[in-house]
Amino acid sequence: MDFTNLLAERTELMKANAIREILKVVAKPGIISLAGGIPSPESFPMDLFHELSRRVMEKYQSAAFQYDLTEGFIPLREQLSLLLAGRKIEAGPEDIHVTSGSQGALDAVGKLLISKGDKIAMESPTYLGAISAFNPYEPRYVSMETDDHGLIPESLEQTLKTHRIKLIYLVPTFQNPTGRTLPMERRIRIAELLKKYDALLVEDDPYSALRYDGEPVPAVKTMAPDHVIYVSTLSKIFAPGLRIGFYAAPEFLSRWLVLVKQGVDLHTSTFNQALAAQYLEGGYLENHLPKIIKLYRPRQQAMLNALETGMPREFTCSPSQGGMFLWVSGPENFDAMTLYEKAVEKGVAFVPGRFFYTDPSQGHETMRLNYTMADEATIETAVEKLGAAAREIIG
Amino acid sequence: MDFTNLLAERTELMKANAIREILKVVAKPGIISLAGGIPSPESFPMDLFHELSRRVMEKYQSAAFQYDLTEGFIPLREQLSLLLAGRKIEAGPEDIHVTSGSQGALDAVGKLLISKGDKIAMESPTYLGAISAFNPYEPRYVSMETDDHGLIPESLEQTLKTHRIKLIYLVPTFQNPTGRTLPMERRIRIAELLKKYDALLVEDDPYSALRYDGEPVPAVKTMAPDHVIYVSTLSKIFAPGLRIGFYAAPEFLSRWLVLVKQGVDLHTSTFNQALAAQYLEGGYLENHLPKIIKLYRPRQQAMLNALETGMPREFTCSPSQGGMFLWVSGPENFDAMTLYEKAVEKGVAFVPGRFFYTDPSQGHETMRLNYTMADEATIETAVEKLGAAAREIIG
Repeated sequence: MDFTNLLAERTELMKANAIREILKVVAKPGIISLAGGIPSPESFPMDLFHELSRRVMEKYQSAAFQYDLTEGFIPLREQLSLLLAGRKIEAGPEDIHVTSGSQGALDAVGKLLISKGDKIAMESPTYLGAISAFNPYEPRYVSMETDDHGLIPESLEQTLKTHRIKLIYLVPTFQNPTGRTLPMERRIRIAELLKKYDALLVEDDPYSALRYDGEPVPAVKTMAPDHVIYVSTLSKIFAPGLRIGFYAAPEFLSRWLVLVKQGVDLHTSTFNQALAAQYLEGGYLENHLPKIIKLYRPRQQAMLNALETGMPREFTCSPSQGGMFLWVSGPENFDAMTLYEKAVEKGVAFVPGRFFYTDPSQGHETMRLNYTMADEATIETAVEKLGAAAREIIG
Repeated sequence: MDFTNLLAERTELMKANAIREILKVVAKPGIISLAGGIPSPESFPMDLFHELSRRVMEKYQSAAFQYDLTEGFIPLREQLSLLLAGRKIEAGPEDIHVTSGSQGALDAVGKLLISKGDKIAMESPTYLGAISAFNPYEPRYVSMETDDHGLIPESLEQTLKTHRIKLIYLVPTFQNPTGRTLPMERRIRIAELLKKYDALLVEDDPYSALRYDGEPVPAVKTMAPDHVIYVSTLSKIFAPGLRIGFYAAPEFLSRWLVLVKQGVDLHTSTFNQALAAQYLEGGYLENHLPKIIKLYRPRQQAMLNALETGMPREFTCSPSQGGMFLWVSGPENFDAMTLYEKAVEKGVAFVPGRFFYTDPSQGHETMRLNYTMADEATIETAVEKLGAAAREIIG
C-alpha cells in the first residue's frame, strides 16, 4: 500500500529535529559531546524517589493511578501556585494547568491559535522545540533581532507595526540556545508593547531557577499578566523523564487549552503529578535546587574560562548567568559547520548555531555549547580541542 | 484583551466532551453512576507498585528519569512485542511505538493524515475519544451501519465505493459504547475490503484482554497487517493514570508518527514506561489479569440479569462477552434523554446513547451502561430504578 498520498498537507512542514540527528551521530564512544540539551542525571534527586513514591502511594492510594482531570492533579496545581508565587507570578491553582512537558503546552497553544499562514514572531535564534510544536499548524515565522541581551524591543515594535502577529514566542531567561537573559528595562518595554499593540506573548521559562550568578529578573508575565501565557516545566529542577510541564494563561485561553489537551492525551500521568506534588510540598525542591546549582555553576565557569584561554581571539561568547548553554560566535563569514566536522574528528561535538534560525541564511558563524553533561576537566579538554580545530580553520 | 479573534479556525469543531459534562453532574453523593467509562480502582495492582518502583530504580537508575526516545522506552517495546505476539500480531520492538495513552496515538494519526475536509469512516455509534482526537484536524465523518455484531461489512464497502476515505476507525472488540464484537467472518471480510480498496484502518483495541466468556477473535491487524494501524493501551489492564498507550503501524507511517509525537510531547514518561516494562517482564500481568476478570465478570452478569428481569420487555441489550459496557435500546421513538432525567431523580445516572453518534438524528432510543465501577448489589439496585423510570415513561 502506498501511503504517501494519505499524508495531510501539514506534514510538509514537519522535519526531523536536526539536533536529534546530530545527537545520533555523536553518541559514539570516545566523543565528548557539548551538543546535548539535557540535564545531567547527577542533577536528579535519586535518593528521594523511593520516599516520594512511598508517600504518594500512602496518601493518594489508587487515585494516583486513576484517570484524572485534564486540567491537572489538584495537589500539584496548589504547589505550582506557590512555586509561581516565589517567582512573583500571581496564579491560583485554578489558573495553572499541567501539561506533558512544556512541549505539551506549546503544542496546545499552536493548535488553539494557529491557522495556516498565521504569523508567529520569534527571536532569532530561537528554541527548536517550539518550532517543532508550531510547524504542524502551518504558521509563517517573523524573525526578530537579538543582541547579547536578547530580543531588541525596537525589533518587536517594528514587527508588531508591520505584521499581523498571532503570537510572540520568547525564552527571556537563560535562553536555549544562547544562554542570554533579557534585562529588566527590556522586559518593561516589551510588556508595554504587548499592551499597546494588544499582543499575546508565550513566555517559555524552563531555566530561570538555574541561576549561578546575579539577581533574578521577574518574568514578563508579572508585568502584563493578561497578555502572557507563561509556560514552565519541572524537567530541569526535578526530572525530565516524568514529563511535567505547566502553564498559567489568561482564563479565556485556559478554558480552550483544556479542550485541546483533552483530545491530545486526556491528561498527564497522575502518578508523576503526585510525585511532583510531594517533591514540592515536602520542601524537597528547596533542599535539592542548591545541589543542582552547585553541580552546574563550576561547569559553566570552567567553560567560560576555557573559552577565554582556549579559543582564538576572534571568537566571542554571549554573557550568561545561568541555564545550560553558552553561545559562541566566530568571526564574520566563519562557517561553524566546517568547525563541527573538524571538531568531531578531534572527538568533540556541539550544535552549529544555524539550526536555531528560521532564516537559513543566518547564524552560520555561531555555535551552541552545552555544559551540563560533562565535568569541569572534560569541558576544559573539549574546549581546548575546539580551539585547536578553530585555529586550523582561521589559520 | 479580547482573545476571540485569535482562535484558529479548527477550534470551531472542538467541543467539551458531552460525557465529561454528564460526569460532572452525576458526581453528587447518593447517585449511583453507570455513566462512567473508567476501570474500577479495585482492578489496579496496588500491591505491586512498590515492588515495581523498587525494581525500576534498581535496574534503570537515573535512566528511568531522563529524557528518552520519542519512539518509546526500548525494554517496554520488547515486552509489548511479546504481548502482541500473544494476540497473534507480529510486531517487533522496532515496529511498536509508545504513546501517552491510546489518545496520544489517535491524535498523532489525525495530525499526520487529516487535512481539512478529509473523510473518516466511523462505525455508528462510535468512541467519543476518537472524535475529540480527530476533530481539531477538521475532518468530515461518514457513518457506517452497525448491528448487534458491530460494523456491517456491506456498509463499509458501500462507503469505500462512494467516498474518498482517508481512514476508517473501528473498535472491533467489546466496543465503547456498545460492548459489541465483530465476529471472525466479518473481520475476514473487512480485511479483504481493506486490500481491495487499498484503505487504511485504525483498529483501536483497548478491551480485548477483558474477555469474560467465549473465545478470543483475532485482530483485523493479523489479517491485513499493511493496511492497519493497531492501537492499544495498558489503561485497562494495568493503570490508566500512567498513560501508556501504543501502536503498531506500517513502517512508512510509523516513521512519520514519531515526528508528529516529537512535536507534541517529545516522549511518554520514561518512569511510567519502565514500570510497565517491569509489570510485563515480571509476569505480573499474567497473574493479575485473571483477578481483573474475576472482578468484572460477575458485575457484567449481574447487569445482564438485572436488565432481563428489571427492564420493560421493549428494551433490548446487545450481546457482549467482555469489556466495560452494555448497550441498551428502548422501543422506537423512545427518548433516552427523558429517561436520563427521570433516572437521575431516582438516583441513577448513565450516558444517553445519542452522544456517541456523529449524526445527531440517530440513537435517541439508546443508552450506555457501565458495570465496572459498581458492585453486583449496587448494579441490581441501579437497574431496578432504571426499569422503574422506564415504565413511568412508556406506561
